[in-house]
Amino acid sequence: MYDGLKGFRDFYPGEQSARREVTDAIEDAASRYGFREIATPALERTEMYVDKSGEEIVEELYAFEDKGGRGVSMTPELTPTVARMVVAKGQELSKPIKWMSTRPFWRYEQVQQGRFREFYQTNIDVFGSSAPEADAEVLAVAADALTALGLTGDDFEFRVSHRDILGGLVRSLADDTEAVDTAAAIRAVDKRAKVDDGEYFGLLSDAGLDRATAREFDDLITGVETVDDLDAVAEAGDESVEAAVENLRNVLAAADDFGAGEFCEVSLTTARGLDYYTGVVFECFDSTGEVSRSVFGGGRYDDLIESFGGQPTPAVGVAPGHATLKLLCQRAGVWPDEELTTDYYVLSVGDTRSEAAALARDLRALGDDVVVEGDVSDRSFGAQLGYADSINAETVVVVGERDLENGEYTVKDMASGDETTVPVEEFPPEDGLPTYEDYD
Amino acid sequence: MYDGLKGFRDFYPGEQSARREVTDAIEDAASRYGFREIATPALERTEMYVDKSGEEIVEELYAFEDKGGRGVSMTPELTPTVARMVVAKGQELSKPIKWMSTRPFWRYEQVQQGRFREFYQTNIDVFGSSAPEADAEVLAVAADALTALGLTGDDFEFRVSHRDILGGLVRSLADDTEAVDTAAAIRAVDKRAKVDDGEYFGLLSDAGLDRATAREFDDLITGVETVDDLDAVAEAGDESVEAAVENLRNVLAAADDFGAGEFCEVSLTTARGLDYYTGVVFECFDSTGEVSRSVFGGGRYDDLIESFGGQPTPAVGVAPGHATLKLLCQRAGVWPDEELTTDYYVLSVGDTRSEAAALARDLRALGDDVVVEGDVSDRSFGAQLGYADSINAETVVVVGERDLENGEYTVKDMASGDETTVPVEEFPPEDGLPTYEDYD
Repeated sequence: MYDGLKGFRDFYPGEQSARREVTDAIEDAASRYGFREIATPALERTEMYVDKSGEEIVEELYAFEDKGGRGVSMTPELTPTVARMVVAKGQELSKPIKWMSTRPFWRYEQVQQGRFREFYQTNIDVFGSSAPEADAEVLAVAADALTALGLTGDDFEFRVSHRDILGGLVRSLADDTEAVDTAAAIRAVDKRAKVDDGEYFGLLSDAGLDRATAREFDDLITGVETVDDLDAVAEAGDESVEAAVENLRNVLAAADDFGAGEFCEVSLTTARGLDYYTGVVFECFDSTGEVSRSVFGGGRYDDLIESFGGQPTPAVGVAPGHATLKLLCQRAGVWPDEELTTDYYVLSVGDTRSEAAALARDLRALGDDVVVEGDVSDRSFGAQLGYADSINAETVVVVGERDLENGEYTVKDMASGDETTVPVEEFPPEDGLPTYEDYD
Repeated sequence: MYDGLKGFRDFYPGEQSARREVTDAIEDAASRYGFREIATPALERTEMYVDKSGEEIVEELYAFEDKGGRGVSMTPELTPTVARMVVAKGQELSKPIKWMSTRPFWRYEQVQQGRFREFYQTNIDVFGSSAPEADAEVLAVAADALTALGLTGDDFEFRVSHRDILGGLVRSLADDTEAVDTAAAIRAVDKRAKVDDGEYFGLLSDAGLDRATAREFDDLITGVETVDDLDAVAEAGDESVEAAVENLRNVLAAADDFGAGEFCEVSLTTARGLDYYTGVVFECFDSTGEVSRSVFGGGRYDDLIESFGGQPTPAVGVAPGHATLKLLCQRAGVWPDEELTTDYYVLSVGDTRSEAAALARDLRALGDDVVVEGDVSDRSFGAQLGYADSINAETVVVVGERDLENGEYTVKDMASGDETTVPVEEFPPEDGLPTYEDYD
């Protein structure tokens, strides 16, 4: 007997049917906005990640040398791959490019609740538009996906921030602009909720902010709870901060028009950890706080395509992670039932295989989504009925020798156990999926 | 600029929409028979493959050591993983277990037409039934999937064989039963169409058959073109051959009942390469021969679960590979168009973003499959119209300031260029997806 690997999961049918329902809801939401599915490789050259994130990234990659001596890695995220694909087609692609895909990614890291070594995400990205409408559309798609799952404004919120407000404020407030490391300061903000005050201010100090400036910076960003509060921030910062505040306001106004405004709140303590973000960033949180971690996040990364050798191409995206989303859905009581559904079990008794099979085919022709099972194990009436129950068959149609002689099937409702006979020529009818009730 | 890896493919939206359509057709066919989706890891312990196939398998695996020192491999096929999963749940799972999944697999091998290092398959398996109906259901699902794609009995055929007929014949004919290697002989049959006569008979000789016996064996298996021809084979073999012939007849009779008979023909020169097959095996071929390789195959592997440490559990499955299936579909002219489809582009001119966004939301609410794009790039009328054309929008709805003052939208048919105005309160109507024709 073999074991699966730690942090890698086997999804059996019940759980998988719920996962599929959730994946479909997210993809359908994106598809309705014209995001087009792409499919991407599981392996890329390791150098692509090292160039982007530094040599230390290799520690958390499934990196190895292939039989041809190439340094390769199992993809830890989608963004570098889509950047590569955008660069490869260059001007061929009409803009905006709107792509989505759902697939697993891999990171060698500590396994904990909602975090695995193999994890699934749906990536949704817009390339080629710097307009606030692109940011807003990404927020709107994410909101539509969550509401399609049954979540409401009481369940989740998007905390929206702007990297250039944070970076610009740091530079505006610092005595020595040269000595300050804005990227490090932004990473400190990203850690703010996860570490204690001492560590947080220590990180800001490491980034080049003295104690008083760090306190002033923190007061400014924590003082913002509404769009109106942004005035004070704009006044405290330089022109870049003013422009970023204006951009953030425009994105939120567009999000209002796009129907996502009710889910958005301004939160400058939101920063996102990855260095490649450039403008608006946001994270989705459980409004009740019961799921304490960020559910997922997204934002603008306007410089990445150019850094990959392409034409300057602004970009913005979001990537719902399915494991944390499951935690939120479970908390809110909207995670789909993890069980099988079966419309019909056609139960063959005696020498009726040919007739039962023909009936099963007729029932399958009733729709793309209909599920019809029949005996493939040469089993008794009782064993077949037990199996039909185990797969949650709604209706069992018994095709028996004696019934057939009378030109009848027996239609049985599995919930109540009630049954009735139905003339062969009336079953199935022309339209709809017939149940016991139709013949009662 | 980075390159993708050789043998790994990027699928852009046009091609991916065709692939998705084909994948959905296969999965829908299996789902209608009650095959339930599972999801499985991309990595497994390398020893699982070495134990099953020998140390030499490592040469074609993406095998490496993970950060925890485990020998791991990117999964080259699904069967060992599902065997592991069946064993892990043991008696918990009600039988028959009917599973399916679509995903990529990886092998380090020579890249050629229809063969890649990352390749996609839909695996469809039944565990826990040794009855011929299980084999027949697998054939029926495969046939339904192919006909759902638009293929007909003129396009493809299932060449059905039986490993125990081949193995039993070899043992029956050989002078020295001990000296004969039936697995090697079956592998020789599998190679028959790919090598010349000399090499083929050489392989049979290596398997322990002298020249005359090998010739007799080959005459017997090539002499079978119909079910009736199996009589001669049953007579030439021992009891195991007789039983296997009986089993093959029963599977074909059940396939007839299940609607797949018209696609099946007996072909004892079909063997399947993998050692774990035990009973009925089959391969799907292009009937015209234009695609010369096997499109995909399947068969029985009754011993695998037990060899993985589980209870004896018969199994039968099929695994359509998407790359060769594409070759067949293209040859038959049924590969879906590789292009984007868009129902509506809502074109906002002037200060109408809010109204245009509300309309786009109303249109998106018309159905799960509807695709509605709008401007996210703050572009001119002309640029928007050009983009709408590039995404093959069927209908453009212009939301202009002046039109709105008159309480109207302009509805434009992109194929003809015809347009008309429609009162705002009549668009969209309660039912259906409105087009220009509805208002002409």
